[in-house]
Amino acid sequence: MNANPIFLNLTASVDEAAVQPFANSRKVYVPGSRPDIRVPMREISLSDTPASMGAEKNPPVYVYDTSGPYTDPDVKIDIRNGLPAIRAPWFEARGDTENLPGLSSAYGLNRLNDPSLAEMRFNLHRTPRRAKAGMNVSQMHYARKGIITPEMEFVAIRENQRRDNLSELVTRQHPGESFGAAIPKIITPEFVREEIARGRAIIPANINHPELEPVIIGRNFLVKINGNIGNSALASSIHDEVEKMVWGIRWGADTIMDLSTGKNIHETREWIIRNSPVPIGTVPIYQALEKVNGKAEDLNWEIFRDTLIEQAEQGVDYFTIHAGVRLAYVPMTAKRMTGIVSRGGSILAKWCLAHHKENFLYTHFEDICEIMKAYDVSFSLGDGLRPGSLYDANDEAQFAELITLGELTKIAWKHDVQTMIEGPGHVPMHMIKENMELQLKHCDEAPFYTLGPLTTDIAPGYDHITSGIGAAMIGWYGCAMLCYVTPKEHLGLPDKEDVRVGIITYKIAAHAADLAKGHPGAQIRDNALSKARFEFRWDDQFNLGLDPDKAKEFHDETLPKDSAKVAHFCSMCGPHFCSMKITQDVRDYAAAQGVSENEALEKGMQEKSVEFLNTGAKLYQKA
Amino acid sequence: MNANPIFLNLTASVDEAAVQPFANSRKVYVPGSRPDIRVPMREISLSDTPASMGAEKNPPVYVYDTSGPYTDPDVKIDIRNGLPAIRAPWFEARGDTENLPGLSSAYGLNRLNDPSLAEMRFNLHRTPRRAKAGMNVSQMHYARKGIITPEMEFVAIRENQRRDNLSELVTRQHPGESFGAAIPKIITPEFVREEIARGRAIIPANINHPELEPVIIGRNFLVKINGNIGNSALASSIHDEVEKMVWGIRWGADTIMDLSTGKNIHETREWIIRNSPVPIGTVPIYQALEKVNGKAEDLNWEIFRDTLIEQAEQGVDYFTIHAGVRLAYVPMTAKRMTGIVSRGGSILAKWCLAHHKENFLYTHFEDICEIMKAYDVSFSLGDGLRPGSLYDANDEAQFAELITLGELTKIAWKHDVQTMIEGPGHVPMHMIKENMELQLKHCDEAPFYTLGPLTTDIAPGYDHITSGIGAAMIGWYGCAMLCYVTPKEHLGLPDKEDVRVGIITYKIAAHAADLAKGHPGAQIRDNALSKARFEFRWDDQFNLGLDPDKAKEFHDETLPKDSAKVAHFCSMCGPHFCSMKITQDVRDYAAAQGVSENEALEKGMQEKSVEFLNTGAKLYQKA
Repeated sequence: MNANPIFLNLTASVDEAAVQPFANSRKVYVPGSRPDIRVPMREISLSDTPASMGAEKNPPVYVYDTSGPYTDPDVKIDIRNGLPAIRAPWFEARGDTENLPGLSSAYGLNRLNDPSLAEMRFNLHRTPRRAKAGMNVSQMHYARKGIITPEMEFVAIRENQRRDNLSELVTRQHPGESFGAAIPKIITPEFVREEIARGRAIIPANINHPELEPVIIGRNFLVKINGNIGNSALASSIHDEVEKMVWGIRWGADTIMDLSTGKNIHETREWIIRNSPVPIGTVPIYQALEKVNGKAEDLNWEIFRDTLIEQAEQGVDYFTIHAGVRLAYVPMTAKRMTGIVSRGGSILAKWCLAHHKENFLYTHFEDICEIMKAYDVSFSLGDGLRPGSLYDANDEAQFAELITLGELTKIAWKHDVQTMIEGPGHVPMHMIKENMELQLKHCDEAPFYTLGPLTTDIAPGYDHITSGIGAAMIGWYGCAMLCYVTPKEHLGLPDKEDVRVGIITYKIAAHAADLAKGHPGAQIRDNALSKARFEFRWDDQFNLGLDPDKAKEFHDETLPKDSAKVAHFCSMCGPHFCSMKITQDVRDYAAAQGVSENEALEKGMQEKSVEFLNTGAKLYQKA
Repeated sequence: MNANPIFLNLTASVDEAAVQPFANSRKVYVPGSRPDIRVPMREISLSDTPASMGAEKNPPVYVYDTSGPYTDPDVKIDIRNGLPAIRAPWFEARGDTENLPGLSSAYGLNRLNDPSLAEMRFNLHRTPRRAKAGMNVSQMHYARKGIITPEMEFVAIRENQRRDNLSELVTRQHPGESFGAAIPKIITPEFVREEIARGRAIIPANINHPELEPVIIGRNFLVKINGNIGNSALASSIHDEVEKMVWGIRWGADTIMDLSTGKNIHETREWIIRNSPVPIGTVPIYQALEKVNGKAEDLNWEIFRDTLIEQAEQGVDYFTIHAGVRLAYVPMTAKRMTGIVSRGGSILAKWCLAHHKENFLYTHFEDICEIMKAYDVSFSLGDGLRPGSLYDANDEAQFAELITLGELTKIAWKHDVQTMIEGPGHVPMHMIKENMELQLKHCDEAPFYTLGPLTTDIAPGYDHITSGIGAAMIGWYGCAMLCYVTPKEHLGLPDKEDVRVGIITYKIAAHAADLAKGHPGAQIRDNALSKARFEFRWDDQFNLGLDPDKAKEFHDETLPKDSAKVAHFCSMCGPHFCSMKITQDVRDYAAAQGVSENEALEKGMQEKSVEFLNTGAKLYQKA
């Protein structure tokens, strides 16, 4: 617990550094078919190519922007009020929901009526929204009825990143190896609808989270990443967690999971959701366990059900539910090196053994579906038996659970409940692909959402890297969302710098995966940055990077002067040795000699390389 | 240039932090067949499993130790004297070399006789050694004559890491996917000899580098990593570079390349080699260019030849030689996004164009071989046309050069000169394998030595990670050595912290590759660390990691007290939620109920999983 009373920290603002717009970037909104569909993007303007290299105009680059209103200078941020409820008109127009008179959860009501919590309570001026009796308000349900929702249109525009207007030169990229993903050149709202109806993608979007800017998760879309935050009994306050969320989305988290297990997690969650433009996920069993004072055997369906409703009415967009930890699988873990390492998995395993009964999440799975569809909460079916060490990778327990998760997927789909599946863990590189293939097979292409996987166990303090390797690979193979791992994994609670490093590492993994899959347009930013690099447009190089601040800071450690930003070298090589400068000299020299390299190249392209060897040699043998 | 006179920094010692033994580790020497073969390893002692978990003894773990005498408290370090010449008796016994009366290089003599350099000159009390006339002193030459040298025996012992005495339980690991590598369970000196004779592995070991602890590079051995150091015209001093070398090998660099391009690179190199227990590589064209004041067109064979001899007599173990940048390939780069990004490549391209002549390194390749075999310098055939952006990956220029490098490999082998091949660069994940396959094919399995590759261009400041992903993958596919990339890549000269982060990242990549290949024994350290983690032996977990200091530092940020080192939780989850603790509770509970989980597991293993589902359920249905 933080030593100071938690509410003292609840000021209106968040850290200035977390909301500052990036250099040469501005927030733009691409309009949809109706005025309240405004899809945010970050436009990065670029300088012209220097005169000595052709004085070319370089078009701006649009990048996916997860940072919400925080980086929009026109929006006044006051976290005590939360973000604007942009989606409210959308579900009002659908007419299948109603505002309840008050909270439905007993626990939620208790907290609301506890005067000692008044000062830390978010001041929400509305009651929860729920599906009208007999209605199903999930995006999957609409999709299957053939309805394109504003959420679907929003994500379609968002996924395209304005690449429809770009020239072939700017978008040129290598054909990918997609392993069966089929990503169209332009994402249409109808394509989004089809993918959601098919169960191959989800838009986690609780109707009690109207502040949300919708995001789609599926193998035929950009690979997404999740950042975990949350307090523990030992550290962190509400304000810290809101700041971590804002900080995480600044660097690119597509969703945030609040994994709080400390005190006041109900109030902490409310503050996070009200201020979050990205989907929020939770693991409700953590809070349920708090309610029974940490005694797993005291858990029961009623407490858990009340927790689901409590969180659904706050606006949680997806729930991790460990319904696949079946009683019979628990003994399969006894000979493992590291037993059960999922917190949820171990809680449920303990419950199963204590009662000699089947997991109550499994037996009540259809009851859970009824709650999910009344608020459009998506399933994230937890892999409670994921391996906690390379030694335990891909073992019987893990794959037995995966088969059950596949069965549960089909039950969820029967209820039109959006569903994704969680995956490992710790897996050596050569065993990663099997995880992806079995998941696609057993879960019929429902989106896969993996933690890492870590490809070796020997680098505590660097597990963002051991896992970033595995994450890039499984993203390439078809994983839809990558759950980040920070440098503090296994060692402690991440601070803001850890969150930043974890997010950037996973943005790298996700983007490397998009490139390898051949996602249309994925290489635009790489091309623009490489061109800037080659033309010594240092500021453009920084600004196009995933972390402009860090790039500039590193460069400026040795060359802080402004003049160095147009210098044709950096401190790594110095002025004489910069190979890019020499390449330019080669081009200039060739031009001065009246030799057109392009002509030589064209000629070479038309002939076989052996022939070109001779041609080329002749071209240059005599001036 | 450093503002202070360089020699003022030349104190006897290196940074205390760089030479401190790691906690609970001691340097051991495994003896070979003769008393002067003493192979260093790091022995990490472990504490016992806590009484509550079985009070088991945990055997020490031996890890590959690149740090040389610096971490041996029995050795007194004085960098003004250099390291002991442990290999001198080995080549004296061979009788095929002679001590020259003095330096053979004109430039070397000039520097030696320049009184203004006296104070920065390393005080070497011996003259260079060279093969007697007509003799070939390369390890490949001995190998092909059937001779097992002490160097070969040394690396055989070193590669085994004492795993021959370990129980099956400790060494248990997943079968790998080796893509054609064939790594025996125990490496014998004869196997080493065969691999070197075949050209599939090299031991870079100049006879003028007697301080060297030999290391082997080849696809059938542990994947190695290289760390680059070196000053530039803008920053760093001699003492800085020696410190960076010592720092690099502390964290695990198997070889070090000195890429200095600033002032006094002759003297800097001497200091580095005299104090280096690992092979030192250089790119001689950098220094040759300095000798012609940075004007590539003024380079010629005589200056280059003198530079090779100068550096060979100092003891450089491998030379990067860009002999594959043929005149005819240069125009192939004109349409690239980023032209020629290899510094050596661009220098030679410029030379070729300026003279309208074939690359003089190509035309003089056999002359170079004559020098290499007189000192046993190994080739690292440079990929001067490697891609500098994803856009340029796997293009015509790159692969044309690779074919030439294959031809040059065969010429080098004709002279029994040890040879490895350098590789890219910037390559999206799905195009990495093609690089490895073509290299194996064209270069007949000569060791591949790659820079990264970077799998995306959009993360300046994090290119250790963008490239660590590619490095792990290409290591898995068969790459023998990975050249590290630091966070400062593209931005500036790395400092010590960057070197550390770069090295650890690449140790992770190399180890992940060993695991995926199924390298025998690769999982020993992972298993030991996972066991320590599960048993809450925090100090063992830190000490078994690649960077014990960082792991401990992270853990102690929130839980600094000594009592927390045996606590069954960390600040990430707190006491109630630690899943490993709960797993232990599950085991205890099951035991208390008289239910043997192991029996259940055994039973499950014998039957089909569906049957086991029923059996398991029955076992637990009633107490």
